[in-house]
Parts: sequence; structure tokens; C-alpha cells
Amino acid sequence: NETAKAELGRATWKLMHTMTLRYPENPTQDHRDALESYFYLTSRLYPCGECAAEFQQLLKKFPPQTSSRRAASLWLCSVHNEVNARLKKPAFDCANLDATYDCGC
Amino acid sequence: NETAKAELGRATWKLMHTMTLRYPENPTQDHRDALESYFYLTSRLYPCGECAAEFQQLLKKFPPQTSSRRAASLWLCSVHNEVNARLKKPAFDCANLDATYDCGC
Ligand SMILES: Cc1cc2nc3c(=O)[nH]c(=O)nc-3n(C[C@H](O)[C@H](O)[C@H](O)COP(=O)(O)OP(=O)(O)OC[C@H]3O[C@@H](n4cnc5c(N)ncnc54)[C@H](O)[C@@H]3O)c2cc1C
Ligand SMILES: Cc1cc2nc3c(=O)[nH]c(=O)nc-3n(C[C@H](O)[C@H](O)[C@H](O)COP(=O)(O)OP(=O)(O)OC[C@H]3O[C@@H](n4cnc5c(N)ncnc54)[C@H](O)[C@@H]3O)c2cc1C
Repeated sequence: NETAKAELGRATWKLMHTMTLRYPENPTQDHRDALESYFYLTSRLYPCGECAAEFQQLLKKFPPQTSSRRAASLWLCSVHNEVNARLKKPAFDCANLDATYDCGC
Repeated sequence: NETAKAELGRATWKLMHTMTLRYPENPTQDHRDALESYFYLTSRLYPCGECAAEFQQLLKKFPPQTSSRRAASLWLCSVHNEVNARLKKPAFDCANLDATYDCGC
């Protein structure tokens, strides 16, 4: 079921990007650990097995960057672009992150 | 921005429900710890502050149930119904979980 897989992917990217864009500018070590664990746990528990395996490989190659909001959001944008490339989707311009993921909350 | 907050909520519920419905029938302790941590980290990192606070309260009152797929998915369904009640939305019939969250992946 490709539609369900795509919808799940869209939902997950939306949550993760919005999360990095609300992440502190100057996180504590505790907050850094939380975000890092969040990505590793997501890659383990993600309901699409093929996608989970892909995400785990990407986390190995590109470990999460958590030193600041900017670092985390740009890191996730580049990881998403790796997935886009694999799926032959166009790359996203990471300069547009703020405009795209303003959750207003 | 109520629309953005609602879209983020829908995306997050979709991911979390689909995750519980793909969770093992007979999880290892390690898997149980992973799912439990996942919910606590989500409640900490969730980008809508008011919603994060609400989720943290709910986790205190109703700690995550992780002993099986059935336990986890019904627990999350009931927590979501607590949020629905607070927002004056109708309760969801948890017997319909499987039909609603078949990610087919
Ligand atoms: C961790 C993960 C791994 C996945 N692995 C696979 C896989 O192996 N095989 C598979 O078939 N599907 C996989 N998916 C699903 C896939 O990435 C897409 O979500 C799905 O194909 C739907 O694509 P889409 O074109 O709607 O846009 P999506 O890729 O879902 O993106 C949603 C929206 O985000 C924006 N966006 C696009 N690129 C970026 C970026 N780099 N940074 C920020 N915003 C961006 C755009 O506005 C886009 O419309 C995975 C999903 C996740 C979350
Ligand atoms: C953890 C969390 C806390 C939140 N707290 C708040 C808050 O404090 N204030 C606020 O304004 N918004 C909050 N939200 C957002 C809110 O819950 C909704 O997501 C948002 O209002 C959009 O609602 P909706 O009517 O589209 O359906 P949603 O509640 O987003 O549900 C999406 C779909 O899931 C299905 N569904 C409904 N109930 C259940 C259930 N019990 N089990 C399984 N599936 C179900 C239905 O098909 C529904 O259309 C929170 C979201 C999350 C994830």
C-alpha cells in the first residue's frame, strides 16, 4: 500500500522537522540527549520496516546534530534530502525551513 | 495558528497509532523500554507547548502500556480519547483501530 506508506512518511517528516525548528537555540546536555534518543528510537520503532532500515543506515552515516536549533534543523533537512535522492524526488532548499514549518504554537 | 497546530496533531497521532499497531505482539523488555521512552521523549519534545504539557500530565495519570501490541494500541487510543474529550471532540471507537491504521508496510 504505497499511499499509506507515503502518508505516514509525510506525517513523520512534518513532526520531526517542526520539532527541530522548536528545539532550543541553546539546548542543555539533557535536551541534546533527548533529541538524539528521539531520532534513534524513531528509527527503531518506525512502522515501515524498509524505511526504518534506511533511517538507521542514515543515522550511522550522519549522526544527529543537536548542538542548536540551527544545527538540528539543517541536519534533519539534509537527511531528508538523502531519502529524497534515493526515491528520485527533488532536493528541498533548506533555506526554506522556517517558512515551511511554522507551527505557530 | 490553529490550522498548523491541528495539522501537527493529526500527523503525530497518525504516526503514534500506526507505530503501536506495528509493535510486536510479544515484545522483548528492550522493545518495551524503547516504546515507553519514545512516548516520554515525544511529550518532552513536542513542538506545541500547551499540547506537550497536556501529554505529560496524561502520561503521569496513565503510564504507557507496552506489554503487547494490543495493550499499547488500546492504551494510546484511550489517551487520545482523553485529549478528544478535553477538546470536546467525539470519542473514537477503539474497536476500529486496525481498520483505520493499516499502513500496509
Ligand atoms: C525516516 C523515513 C524514511 C523513509 N524511507 C523510505 C523508503 O526507504 N522508501 C520509501 O518508499 N519511502 C520512505 N519514506 C517515505 C518518504 O520519505 C516520503 O515521506 C513519501 O514518499 C511521501 O513523499 P512526498 O513526496 O509527499 O514528500 P515527503 O518526502 O514526505 O516530504 C513532505 C514535505 O516536506 C517537504 N520537504 C521535502 N524535502 C524536505 C527536506 N529535505 N527538508 C525539509 N522539508 C522537506 C516538502 O514540502 C514535502 O512536500 C521514509 C520516510 C521517513 C520519515
Ligand atoms: C499528544 C498531543 C496532545 C495534544 N494536545 C492538544 C491540546 O492540548 N490542545 C489542542 O488544541 N490540540 C492538542 N492536540 C491536537 C489535537 O489532538 C488534534 O490533533 C487536532 O485538534 C486536530 O484534530 P482532528 O479533529 O483533525 O483529529 P485528531 O484528534 O488529530 O485525530 C486524527 C484522526 O485520528 C482518528 N482518531 C480520533 N480519535 C482517535 C483515538 N482515540 N484513537 C485512534 N484514532 C483516533 C480519527 O480518524 C481522526 O480524524 C494534541 C495532539 C497531540 C498529538
